[in-house]
Amino acid sequence: MTAPAYGRAFALWRAAAPDWDAYTCHDFVEALGRGDLPRANFLHYLRQDYVFLIHFARAWALAAAKADTLAEMQAASATVHALVHHEMPLHVQICAREGIDAAALEATAEAPANLAYTRYVLEAGYSGDFLDLMAALAPCVLGYGEIGARLAGAGGPYAEWIETYGGDEYQGLCREVGALIDGALAHRLGPDWAGLPRADGLARRFATATRLEVGFWQMGLDGA
Amino acid sequence: MTAPAYGRAFALWRAAAPDWDAYTCHDFVEALGRGDLPRANFLHYLRQDYVFLIHFARAWALAAAKADTLAEMQAASATVHALVHHEMPLHVQICAREGIDAAALEATAEAPANLAYTRYVLEAGYSGDFLDLMAALAPCVLGYGEIGARLAGAGGPYAEWIETYGGDEYQGLCREVGALIDGALAHRLGPDWAGLPRADGLARRFATATRLEVGFWQMGLDGA
Amino acid sequence: MTAPAYGRAFALWRAAAPDWDAYTCHDFVEALGRGDLPRANFLHYLRQDYVFLIHFARAWALAAAKADTLAEMQAASATVHALVHHEMPLHVQICAREGIDAAALEATAEAPANLAYTRYVLEAGYSGDFLDLMAALAPCVLGYGEIGARLAGAGGPYAEWIETYGGDEYQGLCREVGALIDGALAHRLGPDWAGLPRADGLARRFATATRLEVGFWQMGLDGA
Amino acid sequence: MTAPAYGRAFALWRAAAPDWDAYTCHDFVEALGRGDLPRANFLHYLRQDYVFLIHFARAWALAAAKADTLAEMQAASATVHALVHHEMPLHVQICAREGIDAAALEATAEAPANLAYTRYVLEAGYSGDFLDLMAALAPCVLGYGEIGARLAGAGGPYAEWIETYGGDEYQGLCREVGALIDGALAHRLGPDWAGLPRADGLARRFATATRLEVGFWQMGLDGA
Repeated sequence: MTAPAYGRAFALWRAAAPDWDAYTCHDFVEALGRGDLPRANFLHYLRQDYVFLIHFARAWALAAAKADTLAEMQAASATVHALVHHEMPLHVQICAREGIDAAALEATAEAPANLAYTRYVLEAGYSGDFLDLMAALAPCVLGYGEIGARLAGAGGPYAEWIETYGGDEYQGLCREVGALIDGALAHRLGPDWAGLPRADGLARRFATATRLEVGFWQMGLDGA
Repeated sequence: MTAPAYGRAFALWRAAAPDWDAYTCHDFVEALGRGDLPRANFLHYLRQDYVFLIHFARAWALAAAKADTLAEMQAASATVHALVHHEMPLHVQICAREGIDAAALEATAEAPANLAYTRYVLEAGYSGDFLDLMAALAPCVLGYGEIGARLAGAGGPYAEWIETYGGDEYQGLCREVGALIDGALAHRLGPDWAGLPRADGLARRFATATRLEVGFWQMGLDGA
Repeated sequence: MTAPAYGRAFALWRAAAPDWDAYTCHDFVEALGRGDLPRANFLHYLRQDYVFLIHFARAWALAAAKADTLAEMQAASATVHALVHHEMPLHVQICAREGIDAAALEATAEAPANLAYTRYVLEAGYSGDFLDLMAALAPCVLGYGEIGARLAGAGGPYAEWIETYGGDEYQGLCREVGALIDGALAHRLGPDWAGLPRADGLARRFATATRLEVGFWQMGLDGA
Repeated sequence: MTAPAYGRAFALWRAAAPDWDAYTCHDFVEALGRGDLPRANFLHYLRQDYVFLIHFARAWALAAAKADTLAEMQAASATVHALVHHEMPLHVQICAREGIDAAALEATAEAPANLAYTRYVLEAGYSGDFLDLMAALAPCVLGYGEIGARLAGAGGPYAEWIETYGGDEYQGLCREVGALIDGALAHRLGPDWAGLPRADGLARRFATATRLEVGFWQMGLDGA
């Protein structure tokens, strides 16, 4: 698939991540699209995804703390706000509808593949700066966008999930996050950042995070 | 003055901070109340306060990243959201009305007393945990509440400032933050936290932050 | 096996970690002791362990930054110093003897199980305080001590590895680290820390880190 | 004075820091050189400097945690080791000789100017990356080198202090730290880093830290 137009950094990092297709076209994803993913695997994924969202929100909060401009701070804090006041309550509702109550959700034991990705992102953010955090977060935010865009209209039992990420709202968010990243790079490293050693380091961050996303889907497929 | 009812930790920490009165009854504060604070000093304070708010918002974002429960995360992220999407734009408006445009505001050189307080808070948060961050933030949040409550109704040229902090909305926020702190302490240290060495360490954090708040008012009084 | 005498916290945390035996008696460990671990697996482990040591040293450096007393700072910094100036160069030598040169070692791609454990430890340290870091580091430091003590004298092709961890020097280090942890707990939480909610949180950290150590051995067994 | 040859970044940052002369030629420094600094001020400075060294060592430990290469990690950890195992014990001895015992030293209340500088450095390190930390630490390490080089041979009651920083060992350390910084910049940003926006940000860090160093000397001169 051609890369969605989520900006320049995304295009470069995506092209340099050996596992990008293994992530975005993982068997779990294909089975979601075809609609033949066993329900038990989807529910296992949903529960882990709830724990994931907690740490994902923490990472965006850290981004707000590490922002360099008011615009960066506003973008990051708007994301945190959306996550903890809207998406996470929504996730609780969806799980409830599937028979997983809030207590069961809270009691979810975090799978190693989940720990690996979220802690990698947070540690990248703590040890590095705003750019490291963005490079580590990007495969999740933008990869889900690419998956959603590719599967959009597939229908089937997972149509709601697919349309969440393939729909206009999420696609618009992906373009905004892509622009936030491109802006943050230019603000710190100038227009020719792509040729700097720093750019290689960030591409490696993106590639490692992508590799850990493969593990996340695999966990969804293995567990139940 | 008797302590406002902002909770148990506040009452203990306040009583143990040698500079609490020097902070909450500082000459700058008294002059605000009497209405004879020179305008130049107030404007100097307003400009520094804008820079302060940036780092204050960053500290609350860090609190969201370091929260242990969804409720803590929601409380911290709601504060960040209010700061960067409402209070800071409002601050820009107020300054504009006083003849300080956005460019001048952005160009404000951070005074050493300002650097000292904000970096103390952020470093406490990074090096310690959520509780350290709360203890370092509390003198600002709750001290302004106590000052506002004491000066409420004073009128004069600074009535707007006084009523912002003395009004019901801010007083309610102070009770919420006090409850957030008490809850965070009990959640981690149990009901008898007050007798633990950790409580002394937190009281020292609060006392040091209070001492740096004295310096902030003094900066307002000295500068212009 | 009865717990080695590495202190009070270790005894409590070890007893509360469901995967402690799965970690310390993992097939990889048993094969090391019997001497029938395939050489390829051992070399795979050695290469990953080199990358591990880098992040392990970083975590101890973070502990020095987060220490509360000069004694804590000295203990943590002595560990960092030993790691980066002695153990890591030694590791390079051992690998060289096995035909893995420095360039190959540096080029080692970090396995997901390795990423998971090291980033979990570092993130625990950044998001929490000195105690969180100690609880996350303890399964590695003290678990290797317990394994070494149990296998000591087994001989065979992996005798050098076994004696490194079973020998007096490393066993002494384990007692020192155990005492450092017990001291740090008492210093912050008083003598009755074991009954506080904070103690449960730390025991969970230890248990999660232990679970990730199981994954590390499994990676050694699977990979080659 | 011409800049000592501590490398390229130092030369650029120094030239761009408006307060560099106010720092390195502060009245406190001049009085040290002439030998007419009142003893009480020197002792006040020594006590604060002890507290300073604790946080300075913590900052170098954080640098080891945030290092990107083994060489950076070794350089940072060697500095921590020297500080906590040699310089701080030496400082205790010197103070003891001056009649300030260890208990008095430990009981030193941290002056606001001290808090301001050390927390600024640590927060720069936590919020930013290795380069931010280096830029914030450089005015202290290299400024003392420049002062020592300028005053070397002045004799008088403070000759020991002067020769510590003006002597070959410390001057060698300054060249090493300068090379560490230049290397870290080139490693991340390539040979043309000086023209990047990032370089301006780092120069501002250096300039702010320099401004806070002026406050540190002033504290030495005011207090007693």
